[in-house]
Amino acid sequence: MAEFDRDIGLTETAEHTYAADLGPGWVVGGGVNGGYLLATLGHAVRRSAGHPDPLTISAYYLSASRPGPATITTRAVREGRSVSTWAADLAQDGQGRITALATYGDLDLLPDDVGTTASEPDLPPLEECWGMELAPPEFRASAPPLLSRFDLRVDPRTAGWATGRPGGRALIQAWFRLNNGREPDALALLLAVDAMPPTTFELGRPGWAPTLELTVHVRARPAPGWLRLRHETRNLAGGMFEEDCEAWDSAGRLVAQSRQLARQPRETQETQETR
Amino acid sequence: MAEFDRDIGLTETAEHTYAADLGPGWVVGGGVNGGYLLATLGHAVRRSAGHPDPLTISAYYLSASRPGPATITTRAVREGRSVSTWAADLAQDGQGRITALATYGDLDLLPDDVGTTASEPDLPPLEECWGMELAPPEFRASAPPLLSRFDLRVDPRTAGWATGRPGGRALIQAWFRLNNGREPDALALLLAVDAMPPTTFELGRPGWAPTLELTVHVRARPAPGWLRLRHETRNLAGGMFEEDCEAWDSAGRLVAQSRQLARQPRETQETQETR
Repeated sequence: MAEFDRDIGLTETAEHTYAADLGPGWVVGGGVNGGYLLATLGHAVRRSAGHPDPLTISAYYLSASRPGPATITTRAVREGRSVSTWAADLAQDGQGRITALATYGDLDLLPDDVGTTASEPDLPPLEECWGMELAPPEFRASAPPLLSRFDLRVDPRTAGWATGRPGGRALIQAWFRLNNGREPDALALLLAVDAMPPTTFELGRPGWAPTLELTVHVRARPAPGWLRLRHETRNLAGGMFEEDCEAWDSAGRLVAQSRQLARQPRETQETQETR
Repeated sequence: MAEFDRDIGLTETAEHTYAADLGPGWVVGGGVNGGYLLATLGHAVRRSAGHPDPLTISAYYLSASRPGPATITTRAVREGRSVSTWAADLAQDGQGRITALATYGDLDLLPDDVGTTASEPDLPPLEECWGMELAPPEFRASAPPLLSRFDLRVDPRTAGWATGRPGGRALIQAWFRLNNGREPDALALLLAVDAMPPTTFELGRPGWAPTLELTVHVRARPAPGWLRLRHETRNLAGGMFEEDCEAWDSAGRLVAQSRQLARQPRETQETQETR
């Protein structure tokens, strides 16, 4: 079993109630990665709902999660023939970590029209992008566990943050693939869209950027193979910033679009270095 | 009292329970406008929460609303010092219409940094844009009541839909101002981002496009005066499309960003005309 499937694993303890065990491998910044939490929560809704796939899911992050036991409860808001809407909550020791709403359906039953005008990420070939094995030793030594859960090959033009020379544009692009050859599905997309460092890294602010809200639209079932991710911010203002992530599959299809609202990291590269 | 304030008016009938009366003036397509519903729901959360402004709100649309009485219930999910997260539901005759999550705060307490790289909508001057008074009589005769609730001056380059010659690009831009000189605030922004016709109108599909989910980030308190709106779709696929709307205030600030997932209208201009 791939570590992703192991770590989003659930035990049903009562109707619409699931026990999860948040894996220590998904820690980043001040807590457990928000995309992994969303995939775990999304797994619980898949188990409860009569439909397998999140078409849209919106998560509000309440407090930082830590590795260990968590309880997920789900509640049907409206059950329909082709789609159903659910509420779900993830808590640890009785304290709310995430609350979410989601509409589930079956991606295989959507019509097959594609009229997108979005353009694929302008990514160099996989072999020209930077994986962890190329990162400077000092970066690897301090890298969070999360970055070992998948193979992330970052476009060198957007990876200045990894070598202490942030590029100045709030854009990070990368190839993405889960460990163990685990192919992408709708739940893996919930992780993928939150797997990259905050775009603020490229602005010279390497601090943690806590998510307030993250909404993901899953628009098609991803083909096997590498995903390409494009993660960008346009509006950094008022102490917050939005991050839009697109996930494109190996067949050249835009399979997920996400947007999150996060708090800006307080620290800049300079204040961190002079500490 | 401006009609917007009258129509989002609430009577508290029990703790965290409010009676609303959805105005017939907000009808469009198959029901009551989703932005007006969100503003009314957002008003209820403002009344319940210790914070005045939606920083982010995510609504899931369950069934079409109709004019008349509605009940809104709110529930605190997490109350904090600077922000609080709430759940809210709007129902009619016991049937759920919208369920939502929101994080509220006070826009006046946000830091005043502005590092946006987003560019203002490329809109012609107000006097060169098209208001309802310039619309062809046949358009005005069949226009939904919603379009009389505000002054919408559409960029002629994105208004082909109004004259039966859709431009072919999923973009609609306009100046926007509420009736009665009612100045914009955070609740008005919840309406504004859903006030324009679906972008699919410009693709020759004039049908109704029901919203599945709408998330709005309110990023700053808008200055008095006209708003400029930019409403665009990039990914029309699988029977659905996303609509991103930006609202810019008269001071040139990006005050709200929204994204919704909607179902594509089935009907094209041609099928409608040959019916």
